[in-house]
Amino acid sequence: MTSDSYFAGGGEVELFERAFQQHLPVMLTGPTGCGKTRFVEHMGSLLGRPVVTVSCHDDITSSDLVGRLLVTGGDVVWNDGPLTRAVKGGAICYLDEVIEARHDSLAVLHSLADHRRALYLDRADEVVQAPESFMLVCSYNPAYRSSLKVLKPSFRQRFVTIAMDYLAPEREADVVVTESGVDRAVATRLVHCANTIRGADEIFHFEPPSTRVLVAAARLIAAGAREIDAVQACVLAPLSTDTAIGDGLRQIATAGLLAGEEPV
Amino acid sequence: MTSDSYFAGGGEVELFERAFQQHLPVMLTGPTGCGKTRFVEHMGSLLGRPVVTVSCHDDITSSDLVGRLLVTGGDVVWNDGPLTRAVKGGAICYLDEVIEARHDSLAVLHSLADHRRALYLDRADEVVQAPESFMLVCSYNPAYRSSLKVLKPSFRQRFVTIAMDYLAPEREADVVVTESGVDRAVATRLVHCANTIRGADEIFHFEPPSTRVLVAAARLIAAGAREIDAVQACVLAPLSTDTAIGDGLRQIATAGLLAGEEPV
Amino acid sequence: MTSDSYFAGGGEVELFERAFQQHLPVMLTGPTGCGKTRFVEHMGSLLGRPVVTVSCHDDITSSDLVGRLLVTGGDVVWNDGPLTRAVKGGAICYLDEVIEARHDSLAVLHSLADHRRALYLDRADEVVQAPESFMLVCSYNPAYRSSLKVLKPSFRQRFVTIAMDYLAPEREADVVVTESGVDRAVATRLVHCANTIRGADEIFHFEPPSTRVLVAAARLIAAGAREIDAVQACVLAPLSTDTAIGDGLRQIATAGLLAGEEPV
Amino acid sequence: MTSDSYFAGGGEVELFERAFQQHLPVMLTGPTGCGKTRFVEHMGSLLGRPVVTVSCHDDITSSDLVGRLLVTGGDVVWNDGPLTRAVKGGAICYLDEVIEARHDSLAVLHSLADHRRALYLDRADEVVQAPESFMLVCSYNPAYRSSLKVLKPSFRQRFVTIAMDYLAPEREADVVVTESGVDRAVATRLVHCANTIRGADEIFHFEPPSTRVLVAAARLIAAGAREIDAVQACVLAPLSTDTAIGDGLRQIATAGLLAGEEPV
Amino acid sequence: MTSDSYFAGGGEVELFERAFQQHLPVMLTGPTGCGKTRFVEHMGSLLGRPVVTVSCHDDITSSDLVGRLLVTGGDVVWNDGPLTRAVKGGAICYLDEVIEARHDSLAVLHSLADHRRALYLDRADEVVQAPESFMLVCSYNPAYRSSLKVLKPSFRQRFVTIAMDYLAPEREADVVVTESGVDRAVATRLVHCANTIRGADEIFHFEPPSTRVLVAAARLIAAGAREIDAVQACVLAPLSTDTAIGDGLRQIATAGLLAGEEPV
Amino acid sequence: MTSDSYFAGGGEVELFERAFQQHLPVMLTGPTGCGKTRFVEHMGSLLGRPVVTVSCHDDITSSDLVGRLLVTGGDVVWNDGPLTRAVKGGAICYLDEVIEARHDSLAVLHSLADHRRALYLDRADEVVQAPESFMLVCSYNPAYRSSLKVLKPSFRQRFVTIAMDYLAPEREADVVVTESGVDRAVATRLVHCANTIRGADEIFHFEPPSTRVLVAAARLIAAGAREIDAVQACVLAPLSTDTAIGDGLRQIATAGLLAGEEPV
Repeated sequence: MTSDSYFAGGGEVELFERAFQQHLPVMLTGPTGCGKTRFVEHMGSLLGRPVVTVSCHDDITSSDLVGRLLVTGGDVVWNDGPLTRAVKGGAICYLDEVIEARHDSLAVLHSLADHRRALYLDRADEVVQAPESFMLVCSYNPAYRSSLKVLKPSFRQRFVTIAMDYLAPEREADVVVTESGVDRAVATRLVHCANTIRGADEIFHFEPPSTRVLVAAARLIAAGAREIDAVQACVLAPLSTDTAIGDGLRQIATAGLLAGEEPV
Repeated sequence: MTSDSYFAGGGEVELFERAFQQHLPVMLTGPTGCGKTRFVEHMGSLLGRPVVTVSCHDDITSSDLVGRLLVTGGDVVWNDGPLTRAVKGGAICYLDEVIEARHDSLAVLHSLADHRRALYLDRADEVVQAPESFMLVCSYNPAYRSSLKVLKPSFRQRFVTIAMDYLAPEREADVVVTESGVDRAVATRLVHCANTIRGADEIFHFEPPSTRVLVAAARLIAAGAREIDAVQACVLAPLSTDTAIGDGLRQIATAGLLAGEEPV
Repeated sequence: MTSDSYFAGGGEVELFERAFQQHLPVMLTGPTGCGKTRFVEHMGSLLGRPVVTVSCHDDITSSDLVGRLLVTGGDVVWNDGPLTRAVKGGAICYLDEVIEARHDSLAVLHSLADHRRALYLDRADEVVQAPESFMLVCSYNPAYRSSLKVLKPSFRQRFVTIAMDYLAPEREADVVVTESGVDRAVATRLVHCANTIRGADEIFHFEPPSTRVLVAAARLIAAGAREIDAVQACVLAPLSTDTAIGDGLRQIATAGLLAGEEPV
Repeated sequence: MTSDSYFAGGGEVELFERAFQQHLPVMLTGPTGCGKTRFVEHMGSLLGRPVVTVSCHDDITSSDLVGRLLVTGGDVVWNDGPLTRAVKGGAICYLDEVIEARHDSLAVLHSLADHRRALYLDRADEVVQAPESFMLVCSYNPAYRSSLKVLKPSFRQRFVTIAMDYLAPEREADVVVTESGVDRAVATRLVHCANTIRGADEIFHFEPPSTRVLVAAARLIAAGAREIDAVQACVLAPLSTDTAIGDGLRQIATAGLLAGEEPV
Repeated sequence: MTSDSYFAGGGEVELFERAFQQHLPVMLTGPTGCGKTRFVEHMGSLLGRPVVTVSCHDDITSSDLVGRLLVTGGDVVWNDGPLTRAVKGGAICYLDEVIEARHDSLAVLHSLADHRRALYLDRADEVVQAPESFMLVCSYNPAYRSSLKVLKPSFRQRFVTIAMDYLAPEREADVVVTESGVDRAVATRLVHCANTIRGADEIFHFEPPSTRVLVAAARLIAAGAREIDAVQACVLAPLSTDTAIGDGLRQIATAGLLAGEEPV
Repeated sequence: MTSDSYFAGGGEVELFERAFQQHLPVMLTGPTGCGKTRFVEHMGSLLGRPVVTVSCHDDITSSDLVGRLLVTGGDVVWNDGPLTRAVKGGAICYLDEVIEARHDSLAVLHSLADHRRALYLDRADEVVQAPESFMLVCSYNPAYRSSLKVLKPSFRQRFVTIAMDYLAPEREADVVVTESGVDRAVATRLVHCANTIRGADEIFHFEPPSTRVLVAAARLIAAGAREIDAVQACVLAPLSTDTAIGDGLRQIATAGLLAGEEPV
């Protein structure tokens, strides 16, 4: 079983394929660590397109995306950025956590994300028309509410939105087993423990644990760590640094591990 | 039927032509995705003028508009920006979402937008007089209220303002059919669904769905998606990430799709 | 009748001439579009001095005014800015909307605007003494109250202040006729309409319509537009994007157009 | 009678001379336009030292004061700024409105303003010891209260503070007569008018009119303007743009002009 | 006894080794001066890997971490930063006080800290795959609560978190003796004094004294200082500059020193 | 009697020597002008080490401290900053008013101020190990409370803190006599006057007068100024610009001068 098979049962694959076929850009939404990045990698391999990934943050300028003029051997020469390279090469360009980017960096995407499908390189005085095989994909986590950063409606309305969520328990346990080598009973307990905490999310207002932290805990267990120590280090500690909340979480987690021992 | 015919019946075409004839700049207002960009492209083709488009954002400097001094082969040479190129070439220069630009970038437009019709390039020590065929067009969405950004009265009063709105249902369905290839019944249902949501706009305080998202949904449907899935991905998901609001929207949309089945 | 004759009857011309004769700088105040820029152009032609205009904004640096060091052919050479060129050439330097400029840019004006009449170019290590024919003129709109920007008393007290206002109705109608070619009845109606709205300014708190927008409306009418459409596009639409206020304005404007039909 | 004689009767001249003799820096305080700049020029001529003036503002960097590295003919060469030139040349360096400068620019003054009397040029790796004839003089207006800008105690305590104020009425009238050529009766009326307004300062909270504006008004009168028009343009208009306050001021000024007709 | 033996008894060493073996990044949390930096140095020596340390702060850019383009001999050449050097050399890269860094600098770590274990050098157009021996370690002090800086959940969830705390009293006294040369009774008193203050932390809301300050105090004592003077200079004075709190602390400290005289 | 003898009686000298001997950095705290800078100069001469002083402020970058890459003769060459020069030369590096510096500049000090005693020059890819004779000294004024700037505990805990205060009256009068040449009775009156004001500090919330201002006043008196005028210009005027407070201070000062006439 390869990681590519995780997404076999969902409707996401079909929707993504239809958007690709219709030359429409895609926006992936969902909680941290639910598998958005892997899904894009999976679709890239399925559609036979390379994936160019850009992790967005506050300090990315539009020049970091499209390219810049550089002095080389005394001359000023234009250098394509990762977005321009992706457009020219007909790749899937994936902007991870696009909500973190500054709005001005996103403006260069407007003409790529509507019927024009073109990239305007004003400083190089060039217009790059995207080939059929180019696709723009962005992602963000709507649960991570920030008062400062919101995507503008005029931006969001340019995308086919595919909402993703955590895998179903059975499927998530498959992933944990495959990626860490622990036996299925351990994986089931870890997944149950995570779902117990995810259910308490509304009360505690923290970002719930992702599949990624379960795999990390399972790998520590596979390397000899006790289950509760691995859960503490990988699942609980990143959630909160408040001592009182930490104690509450440890009780929930222990209960989850115990309850996970019986098949659910 | 080509996209140029969408605007055949409105008074916008005549008003725009008169402003062009009188050498007056035009400001287009209206909701996101109601067709402002396409209208400018249409007028450019009607008047036989090329259109130079600049997507405005926070980080555009006046140098990005008018040009800058660059080192080339050891010498410092002036390079025209897109606005200067448009003025010199007698084109229509279209500043999309001008309200997003920084005020300082807009100051260079003042002398272009009044009786002087001249561009002052202080750093190049040059004054460019606009030819008769040059036209300045700006646009913004007045419904997108931001406490930080307002266009100054001294700026707004330099323009002939043309207020645009969504197309009439019949005409909007024409657009959906033409651009996606779905049959007319599907297009009518999609338009009805959009108008139902647009009517609920005042309550929910979000940017209503544009013609663009209807075309995107229709194209997914043409590619095999179920109507409700396409509406969810293209029309509803971009509107709000709040779960409760999302449920309400889905009910409104479903009702709209059903009601759209009978001719209205 | 030329545009230069608009100002023939006011005391502004004499006051400006006396300030010029006494080598005192002038500050023009008044609402947007009441003719400050044209007045300066008129005085320049009357006094036989060229006018160098700088539109002020947030991003102008003192280097943009006085000049900067540039690399030319491997050497660093000083390049005069528009202010320095105006001082050296004995021109009228006109800083439009000076309140928009950053305070630091204005500091270079201090020594020009008092008994020293000298420009200190610290970076070029040069002092430029202004010739008798040089004059500094600034303008701002005191009605455009901004909590962030105020001119410091130590700056305002360096100028002879000339307060300007809208032209008298007869004279404003002259301008509209001269610049658009409409017949006098239309011009009278437009001016009456504008004055009705200007009278409602205190209630609505917007910047009242300028002579400029009346000329624009008149030119659209001369090109075949209906009066109410031209007033809507040029006079009313720039005032407010609020629908309720817009309706109120349209009633006021229509009343104004009708009332303007009888000689006032 | 020359302008140098204005300060003949005050204790400021002696205090300044003693500070110069003891190598102590001086801080001048007082309202806008009370003659701080002229006083420094007067003392420079009295002590036989050139005066290097720097108008302080938000955007001055310490490099603008001390100098910077510049590329000249391919080499990087250090260029002294005005402060460094003043120190090396044993001049009086006068920082006008020092409160406007950024704190970081002022830090370079610390070692000059205490017993070290040295300028540390860190970037040029050089220490310049001030000669006996060098003197540092700063000024600011304590009445111009800004919540953002305050001089730090550790800065203020390095200076001998000389508090200045408006000239006595007789002496101020002398200045007005000497600099404008109006007859003494006019000058007396103008001074009386100014003092009436200055007395109302506490109520209206604006910066009171300076000797400078009286001279400007007198020069307009000498050029043929009516007294009330000259007072309006030079004295009243810069004080406030509020219409109600403006009316009140005009009454106070008219009363002042009338009352000034009798010898006070 | 070497400093490496301090950590012999804790579970931290095993957890760190397992994370290294599983190629998982580690996040160390704990109060200032509890020994995080020394622990990383200890683990580097245990695992036979060099440690590359970066002290994080507000002004570190991602270029400071990954490298930059520099002009060398007329050509633009890429220069690796410390992170890139650590990845290429298979070292432990330790980002001290990572919470102080700007978020944008941390974005480059995302792909290194998940299953990709790759560093994307966008500006050099290069992807560096981390060798098995590379390990990323970060640290921060959760007790130092700042309203402005929080690590995002999506960042924290990429790490195995190891929570550290002050050493047990016996072990801490060992460290003080070893590093300063004072006799054990003095060390015991200092540790007792520190623990008394640490217990009062909740009341006074300051950062409690670290092992580092005890070693400093002990070294001053070894050099001849009185115990109370050394405690005052190294332990109490850095805690608070408030006089009243300082008096309270001195009483607590004196009590602690006295109580520390009997074996605890 | 030389200025070096001022500190002969305090415990500061011994504590500083012990810190130097143990290679521990020192933090000096105390009010403005109490003699921190002179004390460092005194210790430098006592220990036979040169002192490199850096006045800290908002705009100092870490490059200003450690050095930067500069283009010299076409090549990019590293230039040591004052801190690096001090480390390499085994000098005392004194950062005056360190609380004014930006936190990012202080991060480079961390590794110098703990057991590593090393300076990491990341951009030059070099580690400079401090010689035994190098010492880091910082100072700040804890009474100057600013809501924006606080030294972090992790920074403060790296230093041996030596709290300084004003000199005892007898000793302060010695300084005044030595540095100005006034006779002892005048010096005693000035010191008494200063202590009266310092006692009123809690009420008025200003920075109390320093020894430096007493010396300045004494020097003006030596040059012929009246005592009350010299006290007004050097002691009172820098304290407050509020008229009411100024009157109160003058009464306190006059009382202090009078009371100082009898031996205290």
